[in-house]
Amino acid sequence: MLPTNDSVQTVNPRLALLETPALLLDEAKMRLNIARLVQRIGPMGPILRPHLKTVKSLDIARLLLSGGTGPATVSTLSEAEAFAAAGVNNIIYAVGITPQKLGRVAAIRAAGCDLSVLVDSVEQARAVAEASTRFKQVIPALIELDCDGHRGGVHPADPKVVQIGRTLVDGGAELRGVLTHAGGSYSASGREAHAASAEQERKAAVDGAKMLRAAGLPCPVVSIGSTPTAHAVEDLEGITEVRAGVYVFFDLVQAGIGVCDVKDIALSVLTTVIGHQYDKGWILTDSGWMALSQDRGTASQKLDQGYGLVCDESGAVLSDLIVIDASQEHGIIACRPGSGTKAPHLPVGSRLRILPNHACSMASQFNHYNVIPADPEAPLKMWPRFGGW
Amino acid sequence: MLPTNDSVQTVNPRLALLETPALLLDEAKMRLNIARLVQRIGPMGPILRPHLKTVKSLDIARLLLSGGTGPATVSTLSEAEAFAAAGVNNIIYAVGITPQKLGRVAAIRAAGCDLSVLVDSVEQARAVAEASTRFKQVIPALIELDCDGHRGGVHPADPKVVQIGRTLVDGGAELRGVLTHAGGSYSASGREAHAASAEQERKAAVDGAKMLRAAGLPCPVVSIGSTPTAHAVEDLEGITEVRAGVYVFFDLVQAGIGVCDVKDIALSVLTTVIGHQYDKGWILTDSGWMALSQDRGTASQKLDQGYGLVCDESGAVLSDLIVIDASQEHGIIACRPGSGTKAPHLPVGSRLRILPNHACSMASQFNHYNVIPADPEAPLKMWPRFGGW
Repeated sequence: MLPTNDSVQTVNPRLALLETPALLLDEAKMRLNIARLVQRIGPMGPILRPHLKTVKSLDIARLLLSGGTGPATVSTLSEAEAFAAAGVNNIIYAVGITPQKLGRVAAIRAAGCDLSVLVDSVEQARAVAEASTRFKQVIPALIELDCDGHRGGVHPADPKVVQIGRTLVDGGAELRGVLTHAGGSYSASGREAHAASAEQERKAAVDGAKMLRAAGLPCPVVSIGSTPTAHAVEDLEGITEVRAGVYVFFDLVQAGIGVCDVKDIALSVLTTVIGHQYDKGWILTDSGWMALSQDRGTASQKLDQGYGLVCDESGAVLSDLIVIDASQEHGIIACRPGSGTKAPHLPVGSRLRILPNHACSMASQFNHYNVIPADPEAPLKMWPRFGGW
Repeated sequence: MLPTNDSVQTVNPRLALLETPALLLDEAKMRLNIARLVQRIGPMGPILRPHLKTVKSLDIARLLLSGGTGPATVSTLSEAEAFAAAGVNNIIYAVGITPQKLGRVAAIRAAGCDLSVLVDSVEQARAVAEASTRFKQVIPALIELDCDGHRGGVHPADPKVVQIGRTLVDGGAELRGVLTHAGGSYSASGREAHAASAEQERKAAVDGAKMLRAAGLPCPVVSIGSTPTAHAVEDLEGITEVRAGVYVFFDLVQAGIGVCDVKDIALSVLTTVIGHQYDKGWILTDSGWMALSQDRGTASQKLDQGYGLVCDESGAVLSDLIVIDASQEHGIIACRPGSGTKAPHLPVGSRLRILPNHACSMASQFNHYNVIPADPEAPLKMWPRFGGW
């Protein structure tokens, strides 16, 4: 049900001073999301290794990481450098290593952070071994396994797994273990499908580890994870750690596949109405793709949320109101086609919140979070975030 | 034709020190693109008012703007502030004004820049008039006209045009003129279609101006423009200025609609091969959507370029090789489906360039340009760019 006319008002005086577009983070929701995965994985035994590519924030990393120091996962060396400088001492850089980046890896390690890299070819293993010699640093590497054909990694039954492992060990690098990621789980819907993806992840990792051990090679780390599988996994036998990232904020893609509810989404963009095309039912705002990102992850889901689902300024969803189109600095809001609902009256200057298709993308469009504390009397907090490589 | 095996090599020693992903700008191509529009519009009479939302760079603004000081167009107040601080003294903020932003507008004007705003409603005109009184600054506003139904603006025959104009003038603001943008031209292909869009733009602007003048209101500025229409317009009678932005870099969307050739595209992302899935014909790189952007503007064109067209490190197009998929920090390169071509051998560590679907989006993913000067002996230049609102 949409609110009636004039029910959409400024309800949060703390937001009044923000210029739009602005990135909002609901701290209470985020803390619940963080606790939910800790409570789920903790009792099962494996370590939780959050993926910090979603948050790129020292303030949030402190809340996320065990003791504030790790273990952690990152997607860029600039993340590794920033988090290592802040005291995170155990990091996996979970993108296949570029040989040219190994000098920076060695420098981060030399500064005291146990940074490990990812390889899925003998060529990369050789590069890691050579860098270990050149930089006088035994660089640890995990072998990336392919559990669902969605991206990189070696098939766990491929003899290359052992060749890569041996190239690392014989060349003077460290074979730290195996890692896999069920990226395919993002396009599967429902707990049963995600549990099946999780078992696929587990089996690939355990099979790869077994093959290495059978060849007399070490495999201390057996790492799996994605937000959908981490929330659905039933059996973690043989697994030493679970990774996940977007669970901290959640988003419409995750809601669309049943991993969370829309009300769990902690991230949004605050926007302002700048105009109308009344004959078309359009509400124009000052938040285009530069603020919302161009992620259209729900386009292939059952419920297409356009460039984002619209909430009033307090965060209450205005059902069936979505951002139907976006240019660089303009958003066009309208009722979902076929919904039969009517948009509320939103005069120029009204404020709204837009929920993200993909939290990683939306967050990356901004250089700080405006954090709304749970205590309604507490002021907003400004938490910086960083980007780059 | 694809190069044969082993023909893809490091050819540009200036790029060797760059870590990937990195944003490259070919200075010679950019200068030709800039000159092309100056040579086209200059002799026709109207002023050229480049849109700086594409470049967000003081170094490029100096090359683009007449005398380095304007006139210019921007899409955010942070652009207005940065360019005004650098001496640009005549700017249109070409996104419908949010009433809450008028304090910043007045401050930029008070510091000596003739910044004008855009309105398409009586509500906004009233807000501009009120702010003119409150901040003791006669704020100039242009009325946004809708020439093709694609976004905001008042229909040029709508009596609201005069109401808005009168609200501005009677309230103590300044009516600077009318402005329209044929955003629809981006989805039309070929010079004839763009010339028709340009005439639609011209007619809407001239009709709006006529209506204001007939009502005894001033209309000194009659502003139109988009990259496709600026390059195709045949008649500029009644028009005082032309705006365009993406013409500086060009991109695959513009090439796809015939405004430029692929060889004119001055912007690319330098990337490194990190792996292969040989059975699928996939080449994995370290540049995902965080580097390339999520723009899929060519998806609706005749030739879908995926997340970007692949070139060797020197910038020569590897025909039919495109980025078929992208996650946050991974790109997957493969031959265009159905092309029947075979990818060249690209060992781990090979460098490639990826051309953008949309230059504005790709550039916004980076905080600086690595500028390749025309002189092959000259070193790379590092030109900062900014973002935010």
